[in-house]
Amino acid sequence: MSSPHAARDSSRTNVAIIGMGTVGAGVARLLIDHGDRTARHAGKTIWLSKAVVRDLNKPRGIDLPAGVLTDSIDEVLNDPEIDVVVQLIGGLSPARETMLRAMEAGKDIVTANKALLAEHGGELFTRARELGRSIAFEAAVAGGVPIVANISQCLSANQILSMEGILNGTSNFIVSQMDEKGAGYEQTVKLAQELGYAEADPAMDVDGTDAAQKLAILSHLAFGATVDWRDIPRSGIDRLDPVDLQYASQLGYRIKLLAAARMIDGELELSVAPTLVRKGTPMAEVRDAYNAIRVVGDAVGPVFYHGLGAGQMPTASAVVADIIDTAVGRTPITFQTLEYFSKDRPARTVQRDVAKLRGRYYLRLHVSNHPGTLAKIASVLAEHNISIASVIQHEECSDEAVAAGKTSDEKFVPLVIMTHEASEGAASEATQAIAALKSVDGRAVRMPVRT
Amino acid sequence: MSSPHAARDSSRTNVAIIGMGTVGAGVARLLIDHGDRTARHAGKTIWLSKAVVRDLNKPRGIDLPAGVLTDSIDEVLNDPEIDVVVQLIGGLSPARETMLRAMEAGKDIVTANKALLAEHGGELFTRARELGRSIAFEAAVAGGVPIVANISQCLSANQILSMEGILNGTSNFIVSQMDEKGAGYEQTVKLAQELGYAEADPAMDVDGTDAAQKLAILSHLAFGATVDWRDIPRSGIDRLDPVDLQYASQLGYRIKLLAAARMIDGELELSVAPTLVRKGTPMAEVRDAYNAIRVVGDAVGPVFYHGLGAGQMPTASAVVADIIDTAVGRTPITFQTLEYFSKDRPARTVQRDVAKLRGRYYLRLHVSNHPGTLAKIASVLAEHNISIASVIQHEECSDEAVAAGKTSDEKFVPLVIMTHEASEGAASEATQAIAALKSVDGRAVRMPVRT
Ligand SMILES: NC(=O)c1ccc[n+]([C@@H]2O[C@H](COP(=O)([O-])OP(=O)(O)OC[C@H]3O[C@@H](n4cnc5c(N)ncnc54)[C@H](OP(=O)(O)O)[C@@H]3O)[C@@H](O)[C@H]2O)c1
Ligand SMILES: NC(=O)c1ccc[n+]([C@@H]2O[C@H](COP(=O)([O-])OP(=O)(O)OC[C@H]3O[C@@H](n4cnc5c(N)ncnc54)[C@H](OP(=O)(O)O)[C@@H]3O)[C@@H](O)[C@H]2O)c1
Repeated sequence: MSSPHAARDSSRTNVAIIGMGTVGAGVARLLIDHGDRTARHAGKTIWLSKAVVRDLNKPRGIDLPAGVLTDSIDEVLNDPEIDVVVQLIGGLSPARETMLRAMEAGKDIVTANKALLAEHGGELFTRARELGRSIAFEAAVAGGVPIVANISQCLSANQILSMEGILNGTSNFIVSQMDEKGAGYEQTVKLAQELGYAEADPAMDVDGTDAAQKLAILSHLAFGATVDWRDIPRSGIDRLDPVDLQYASQLGYRIKLLAAARMIDGELELSVAPTLVRKGTPMAEVRDAYNAIRVVGDAVGPVFYHGLGAGQMPTASAVVADIIDTAVGRTPITFQTLEYFSKDRPARTVQRDVAKLRGRYYLRLHVSNHPGTLAKIASVLAEHNISIASVIQHEECSDEAVAAGKTSDEKFVPLVIMTHEASEGAASEATQAIAALKSVDGRAVRMPVRT
Repeated sequence: MSSPHAARDSSRTNVAIIGMGTVGAGVARLLIDHGDRTARHAGKTIWLSKAVVRDLNKPRGIDLPAGVLTDSIDEVLNDPEIDVVVQLIGGLSPARETMLRAMEAGKDIVTANKALLAEHGGELFTRARELGRSIAFEAAVAGGVPIVANISQCLSANQILSMEGILNGTSNFIVSQMDEKGAGYEQTVKLAQELGYAEADPAMDVDGTDAAQKLAILSHLAFGATVDWRDIPRSGIDRLDPVDLQYASQLGYRIKLLAAARMIDGELELSVAPTLVRKGTPMAEVRDAYNAIRVVGDAVGPVFYHGLGAGQMPTASAVVADIIDTAVGRTPITFQTLEYFSKDRPARTVQRDVAKLRGRYYLRLHVSNHPGTLAKIASVLAEHNISIASVIQHEECSDEAVAAGKTSDEKFVPLVIMTHEASEGAASEATQAIAALKSVDGRAVRMPVRT
């Protein structure tokens, strides 16, 4: 339909997709089946010119017009009529090189690859600016929930004070299932894999890496902070014991893998951790593979967003919105104005010392049922200036303690303590001191609590 | 600071506010106190040049630099350096005339006045297009919740299938209070007025007018529908009886003033009504003066937004985001592309006949406690093809029935019925037929139920 040597046509934006996996096929479907819709929102035609794959024979679940499918990236890079390249190869390489080459060939970029941005954002954004190109990445964080546009644009009158969110749908699916069904971690991961909510190797999802990468990107947008995701203190749900979900519930809480960023005294507090969230709050009621983010701005107050953070069509929804924004010219303006990841822009924030984080904590210990044990633990907490808000202690002997090799005549029972506010430093030291007590079996579980 | 005859300066956008009431003062505060922040998001200075008031001596709760405050609109209209006029006079006149004159003087407009847009949107937007100007109106719907940008821009890859929301904070405050405290309507309105959540005359808030006006605007954005808000079937919370909150609760629901739009078979179903919403869903848990909107798109699925729908700073947050978007050029692109309220753009939707709406219903009747009454009612429902999902019947005599003049030896008791899905037409006819039964006291309460 398009003659390869014609000049760019302002009534039409030509798009190429590189990487026709789950998301790529969804984007192609929206562009092909709903051209009327994209034209209405862009005020011009959005035309899928090329779709680049490695293997031309692999089924893609979508009928592409003749001439669209190709295994040659050069066909895209050498076509001056193609304006926008949608980079949907996962991982770092060749995604990074492809993106650089496409920008050098004069293409604006749309991508969903958060790992790439978390790793090479600085390089890619700087190069884009040098070349006068733009990069749109709504789909890289929280899939269908348009949190990038909301923070960069809709909430621009605010100093963001804090952000917290459920940013990994796989983890949330697993935790919600464990909570509702009382099932164990391993068994629930299998279910998640069967239902397509978890990949064959879900490590990056369940260990907090994916959430930390997204939090690093959001922190950049919200606070102008350049954060290496590796520096974010993080733990995942991969060692979550169902028993903690039950105790949390008795205390009126659910456990969620929460990514949190807070500005305190000009310093940025960041963390990714299984966290107790009070039941009945919107965040605690986020189920299945949903994502949610609560942003607090100094003018707007709290704004809460909830939607599907992954999946073919929700993610494609975000990618196609970015394609439209790029085609009409909004993305280039935003990209140029905000100077994402600019090295010229002085970092406005430093990351706060982890020991200074403050919050409430949930502690689960295994303690000997000798008289005086609770008194000893309470006095260690008091020495660290930590006061106790609630305690759950049951009489039964803990099977785990027995399994851990403690003699069954020395009875160990679980003891759960919820503290009042304390510093992370004090809580960490106190937990170590408690675990070293003779009457306490060494392993202690500690999680932050949101109120 | 600015010489009145200089040419426009591209490193600075000059802004005038007309109407320094609650919102105007908030906008002025953000522009004056946080110039660094607006400059960072706009890539240039956003400068408050003028603030127009009627009475120069009225305290505005904010220190304006010398020369900013004026009682002359002409000072703004005749100043070629002023780029953006923020129209914050409430009501229809002189807001409409002021806006038209400002556009004729070459100014782009930002406004929060939903009544004006609901009434004169067609005229104002058409005139803006003729003059090559833009109108931004994020603050007109749901205050701080950026729903206008989200529907117009972030969800642009979707056909919106449905929208439902709590769009009036005053009503939600009143209903939540009645629900939590068990207090009556009149008493709760007084409390809302004391706390500043309701105006001296809250009629437009509590009777559903304000929500209907906002729904008309959102329907335009989401469905391209040109809806006169007067054509939206609506009822308010001003006749809500606390007893219905109690029965709803027993059935597992809360009552919310819900504005809803749904696309069915190419027809648009619209309504504003107190509605039973299932407890535990995010919408049911929206409290105080918060607003919330749930939008379902065919690609993205459901996206839920929650935040402060009114108040000085949340509303100012939306206005200032619009000022920035206008200054950098995003708003003009969006405005031009989407052709809001364009008469040239064929209405893509017709409003569905009310009788065809389908849903579940809550019915509260006062019935004689003679044997056979329930059987009669059930058979009227069955004749209209409506089946019963649950029933609550208590034994006590209803004081209301007594007060209504029924003799106390003929005992009337409340009967609450929740139906399965039925059409509005059938539900309405059946309710009339039931109310006409001898064994039923004439007044029946009927509300839709969301699941
Ligand atoms: N899936 C989601 O829900 C989701 C949500 C948000 C963000 N994302 C991000 O979006 C990106 C894509 O995700 P996905 O789920 O679509 O992944 P995917 O299903 O694994 O698809 C990746 C595609 O890239 C193709 N590819 C790899 N190297 C290539 C090369 N050299 N040339 C051409 N094609 C190449 C693969 O080709 P073959 O088919 O030939 O192997 C595959 O089709 C990732 O960065 C992911 O993190 C995904
Ligand atoms: N308040 C909110 O939370 C909120 C939220 C969303 C949208 N809105 C909308 O925003 C608009 C403003 O609301 P508001 O709460 O700020 O109202 P407000 O407090 O009543 O302020 C309106 C202002 O307009 C001024 N005004 C009236 N006629 C004027 C004229 N001819 N020339 C100059 N100024 C004139 C009034 O001046 P005087 O001070 O001299 O009387 C008053 O200061 C309304 O359309 C409202 O619906 C408000």
